[in-house]
Amino acid sequence: MKKTKVAVLGATGMVGQRFLALLENNPYFEVSALCASERSAGKEYREAVSGRWAVEGEIPEKFAEMPVEKCEPGIDAEIVFGALDSSIAEPIEQAFAKEGYAVSSNTRCHRMCEDIPLVIPEVNAGHLEIIEEQKKNRKWGGFIVTNPNCSTIAMVLGLHPLQKAFGLEKISVTTMQALSGAGYPGVSSLDILDNVIPHIGGEEGKMESEPLKIWGELKGGKFENADMKISAHCNRVNVKDGHLETISLSLKKKASLDEVKKALKEFRAEPQELNLPSAPKQPVILMEEENRPQPRLDRMLEKGMASVVGRIREDKIFDYKMLILGHNTIRGAAGCAILNAELLKAKKYI
Amino acid sequence: MKKTKVAVLGATGMVGQRFLALLENNPYFEVSALCASERSAGKEYREAVSGRWAVEGEIPEKFAEMPVEKCEPGIDAEIVFGALDSSIAEPIEQAFAKEGYAVSSNTRCHRMCEDIPLVIPEVNAGHLEIIEEQKKNRKWGGFIVTNPNCSTIAMVLGLHPLQKAFGLEKISVTTMQALSGAGYPGVSSLDILDNVIPHIGGEEGKMESEPLKIWGELKGGKFENADMKISAHCNRVNVKDGHLETISLSLKKKASLDEVKKALKEFRAEPQELNLPSAPKQPVILMEEENRPQPRLDRMLEKGMASVVGRIREDKIFDYKMLILGHNTIRGAAGCAILNAELLKAKKYI
Amino acid sequence: MKKTKVAVLGATGMVGQRFLALLENNPYFEVSALCASERSAGKEYREAVSGRWAVEGEIPEKFAEMPVEKCEPGIDAEIVFGALDSSIAEPIEQAFAKEGYAVSSNTRCHRMCEDIPLVIPEVNAGHLEIIEEQKKNRKWGGFIVTNPNCSTIAMVLGLHPLQKAFGLEKISVTTMQALSGAGYPGVSSLDILDNVIPHIGGEEGKMESEPLKIWGELKGGKFENADMKISAHCNRVNVKDGHLETISLSLKKKASLDEVKKALKEFRAEPQELNLPSAPKQPVILMEEENRPQPRLDRMLEKGMASVVGRIREDKIFDYKMLILGHNTIRGAAGCAILNAELLKAKKYI
Amino acid sequence: MKKTKVAVLGATGMVGQRFLALLENNPYFEVSALCASERSAGKEYREAVSGRWAVEGEIPEKFAEMPVEKCEPGIDAEIVFGALDSSIAEPIEQAFAKEGYAVSSNTRCHRMCEDIPLVIPEVNAGHLEIIEEQKKNRKWGGFIVTNPNCSTIAMVLGLHPLQKAFGLEKISVTTMQALSGAGYPGVSSLDILDNVIPHIGGEEGKMESEPLKIWGELKGGKFENADMKISAHCNRVNVKDGHLETISLSLKKKASLDEVKKALKEFRAEPQELNLPSAPKQPVILMEEENRPQPRLDRMLEKGMASVVGRIREDKIFDYKMLILGHNTIRGAAGCAILNAELLKAKKYI
Repeated sequence: MKKTKVAVLGATGMVGQRFLALLENNPYFEVSALCASERSAGKEYREAVSGRWAVEGEIPEKFAEMPVEKCEPGIDAEIVFGALDSSIAEPIEQAFAKEGYAVSSNTRCHRMCEDIPLVIPEVNAGHLEIIEEQKKNRKWGGFIVTNPNCSTIAMVLGLHPLQKAFGLEKISVTTMQALSGAGYPGVSSLDILDNVIPHIGGEEGKMESEPLKIWGELKGGKFENADMKISAHCNRVNVKDGHLETISLSLKKKASLDEVKKALKEFRAEPQELNLPSAPKQPVILMEEENRPQPRLDRMLEKGMASVVGRIREDKIFDYKMLILGHNTIRGAAGCAILNAELLKAKKYI
Repeated sequence: MKKTKVAVLGATGMVGQRFLALLENNPYFEVSALCASERSAGKEYREAVSGRWAVEGEIPEKFAEMPVEKCEPGIDAEIVFGALDSSIAEPIEQAFAKEGYAVSSNTRCHRMCEDIPLVIPEVNAGHLEIIEEQKKNRKWGGFIVTNPNCSTIAMVLGLHPLQKAFGLEKISVTTMQALSGAGYPGVSSLDILDNVIPHIGGEEGKMESEPLKIWGELKGGKFENADMKISAHCNRVNVKDGHLETISLSLKKKASLDEVKKALKEFRAEPQELNLPSAPKQPVILMEEENRPQPRLDRMLEKGMASVVGRIREDKIFDYKMLILGHNTIRGAAGCAILNAELLKAKKYI
Repeated sequence: MKKTKVAVLGATGMVGQRFLALLENNPYFEVSALCASERSAGKEYREAVSGRWAVEGEIPEKFAEMPVEKCEPGIDAEIVFGALDSSIAEPIEQAFAKEGYAVSSNTRCHRMCEDIPLVIPEVNAGHLEIIEEQKKNRKWGGFIVTNPNCSTIAMVLGLHPLQKAFGLEKISVTTMQALSGAGYPGVSSLDILDNVIPHIGGEEGKMESEPLKIWGELKGGKFENADMKISAHCNRVNVKDGHLETISLSLKKKASLDEVKKALKEFRAEPQELNLPSAPKQPVILMEEENRPQPRLDRMLEKGMASVVGRIREDKIFDYKMLILGHNTIRGAAGCAILNAELLKAKKYI
Repeated sequence: MKKTKVAVLGATGMVGQRFLALLENNPYFEVSALCASERSAGKEYREAVSGRWAVEGEIPEKFAEMPVEKCEPGIDAEIVFGALDSSIAEPIEQAFAKEGYAVSSNTRCHRMCEDIPLVIPEVNAGHLEIIEEQKKNRKWGGFIVTNPNCSTIAMVLGLHPLQKAFGLEKISVTTMQALSGAGYPGVSSLDILDNVIPHIGGEEGKMESEPLKIWGELKGGKFENADMKISAHCNRVNVKDGHLETISLSLKKKASLDEVKKALKEFRAEPQELNLPSAPKQPVILMEEENRPQPRLDRMLEKGMASVVGRIREDKIFDYKMLILGHNTIRGAAGCAILNAELLKAKKYI
């Protein structure tokens, strides 16, 4: 199969760097352009990112000497990955979509638009069908697909086997989120040493609304929100990567603890069937130890692409309680956008 | 007023050290004996604790040269504070109570006994009435009073104004607990660096059961559990002191956000009226900032004796959600036991 | 004694906040003006600093409602403390000195000027004599006095008893410096978690040059550098406050280990004799434990105003090696500038 | 080539685990026995190590179900790797050597014995010649080879190119050592949070003496210490893996900065020539950035088997100063012992 040319918008930032690290050996895609702000444009990538490469290991050789380009249509690529700051991304992503590019964006600006799909490939691949509608409405040659917020992805992917098998009625979640979720330089060391910061701007709203769209139905060209209630408490803790979430939930159709565990363990979906290159073999991992998952120990299971579920037990108010852990910059950001693009290619949207 | 002589059982441990730091200038009490294991008995306190003094500042001068005694009745004291490890405390505390000492214990072993009160002075001072029953039943000259687990104290004190004014129906809580709660050496640095440990042995059970007794009624010499549901998720985070808890709750009698805030702000109770020396002026502090309370910044408010409440807002599943922070080794352990003893003295139990 | 009116330039920053916390109850000084950038000027102090108060406890009541003023002469004060960023401080401090104010500055911009004294009161109080020269040269009504860099102060104060008694020939120092030394937001949490940053811009140069001036002689209106060699390695570690330094040194006049310890223990100087309000009783503390001083345990000895020395032992290359710890934002910054001002007042320079 | 059977003594401990992780795919060796204390013997490895697997990733499948055996000769292996606690290792290692096993030990107990080599393969492979002497003296069928302490290995490997090219006269070193160096549970989280511990028992002595043997000459069956002076300050910092060291040194034969850098960059030795499977391509890496190496970013260069040198510059007292970083549990422990064994095999000692 011929590799599709892809570009990264915001390639010098923290999520942009993660895109590159994950794309280095991708069999579907070949990075043909690195785009960033005016300040970086014209420099070699290594120079533009100097001293701020934040992913483990060195800058991949193949990208180090590529020139950084401006974030404007005209670049040599079919797909563009969106990793720009949300404050400036909206017009830029739309410009690319208008000019015929497929945009797979990690930015929040288009997530809740009514003709733009918000996709986790294992959960709602069918929502891609709105793309035709989107292109027609907006008179675009290309289109935009988005992935959810990092803390939403971990939760929705981890709980999807239960939504599918039994239906979810209520979810109460408390997050303990990693520092890398705030970007770089992000959280000051003086704020987090010997501390927890019990507030992340806008995060609780995203966790309470995005799942309703993702688990909603696409009917007659419109998304109908799923019928469930979600309440979120979001906190920042002194952990580099990996959002850990405590979850209490009630099911629509009652199920035994064994049935719940079975549903989680056996869950596979379209990306696994299509054998997409970035798809985890096991999208939801169930741990049985009483003190797992833990961020540092378990965030890299399935190369950071799984939701790790643990400590499932009965709840005195809800039906069950449990833990979910997800790698926030891999599955929770760049990795999900790449998997979305692989799905688009496998399903001939590109 | 003549000072009452008090002893600390387990004086060399972490909670024992905190007892001494708090008792150094107490106007009601004078520390007349320091008791610890056979290994320490006979040594000077400074030597017995050498290299393991874990409270800020130095060992108070007045205790440094006191001899460490064995944990056996016969010591010169009227009150003994219990800070022994729960694995060995039970027979020792009972021996003291039998011999006429008043035992104010921070240990968990007697908390759930049906004739032993589990007291937070601002919440259920009335439960001390069971003492007469206890002495009679057990044919003891003295008696035992206990205080709850650290994470329970923060929650129950912080929510008591709402329980009193409106009644609590359901509480869902997730804790982010400090390292000092695990004692010394406690949690290995290798386990908590860049990590969260999502399990604390026995802690969830304590948080789900102790409040039912504390908020229960003492009727005809028996405690009747409060009628409410509690579900807890307990986690250890990389913070030295201060347990932070996210709480979602429903009230029995509906109340507006303003009414809820008013109840919290105006709350005062018997320790404040009696002007007990260790009582905080304001037992429940309400913060209005969107990112407070935080452990490092707010754990020492009211010298560590308050529950600090913040971020009160509506919940999509329960009535309200909020944060509560409490200092786990001060109000959550030694400070509560001392306040219990002050209450006993003010109410002539001693 | 009537209190002298003082102002703080850069009152909203991290060092400025520390000045206010230390000045709250100072018996010599009364804070009459708070000055900061144009952006803050006109606001109440509480509002100007909102969410960025970084000292333990709350903003002192007496300052919370004071108006923030611009950093321009005309304010009602006799002394101004300099806590501005060094990139903008130079012309501002000079404007104040010209208009008759006494400037006690923590900023680096004037430290190495040949007519401006660089003072640690216990070390080189005599250098204040250059003030007359300075006023005359520059035709200023007031004057500028500076204090050294934080890591320099800890080292020079801690070693001064040895310089005085035996003379220092060579000093090799490696620092492990606290996060608060980089200001706020300063070091990103992503850079320091599970890490050490082995470089602090300009710091090694300051540690190698400032001591030569401080320990130099003032002769005929000119400073002559001390004759010694200093080499520094500077590192940032994951500690909130307190710079720890390993030091190897050789003496000009040989001395036994006991003589060295005696010199350190018995050291007192002019601030102690004058009983200045911010002077530590014991400016140099000698610890004998094999694993002390430690930043978290010992930084607040003498309210953060001492240099704490420990682990003195023979060195295989130099004469002796040891540890020195100093609180970087108290004795290493605001506290030293305040002590300098107290010295100026006691010696009638103001 | 047929794989040689190897066993690990102390296989359940932290260094033992690291041995297994590194041996999983070693082309020279096949792990045929896992030995540990009586308490673990008889269990499956997975069970014996339960909850204490501390290396990234899971327990390698091939070891999980192996039985744990006692640390006694008779096991099926040719080489045994020593990872026991030094308090019990001495008689056990000797028993194996006596019975004909080749012991490659990471334990400190035999390091300074006069007929036992202390080897870093790139530095003093020639010292293996003492083995014949050792076997004869002790009437052993097998023999013992040791590797140095973790902080020594990083320093000696990193400086060896300079020793070889110019001779080292004096080395002054300050370490900032990682938590994993203290084993598990090792350092309490309460001791290291917001802190540095400026003492590691016995460490300074090892750093000051071991290099003299390693760089010494083997003459007439005896080691003669190298002629140089070393002084060490050892500290524990809040870092998981990777010892960082600041080093000031003087050379016997003067050399320019360029000559020094060239010597470091071009250094290769016998393990590289023999192409040993665990040998790094580049045993000494020279970084030119002003703030590198850093433990979290650079400890895994060359899979943790290199010494990383940086910030080389002139020193005001010595000739040059610099940083050295080494991974303490890989090259500084298990990795060095494995490389020693590979060298033994390549040179036909086994």
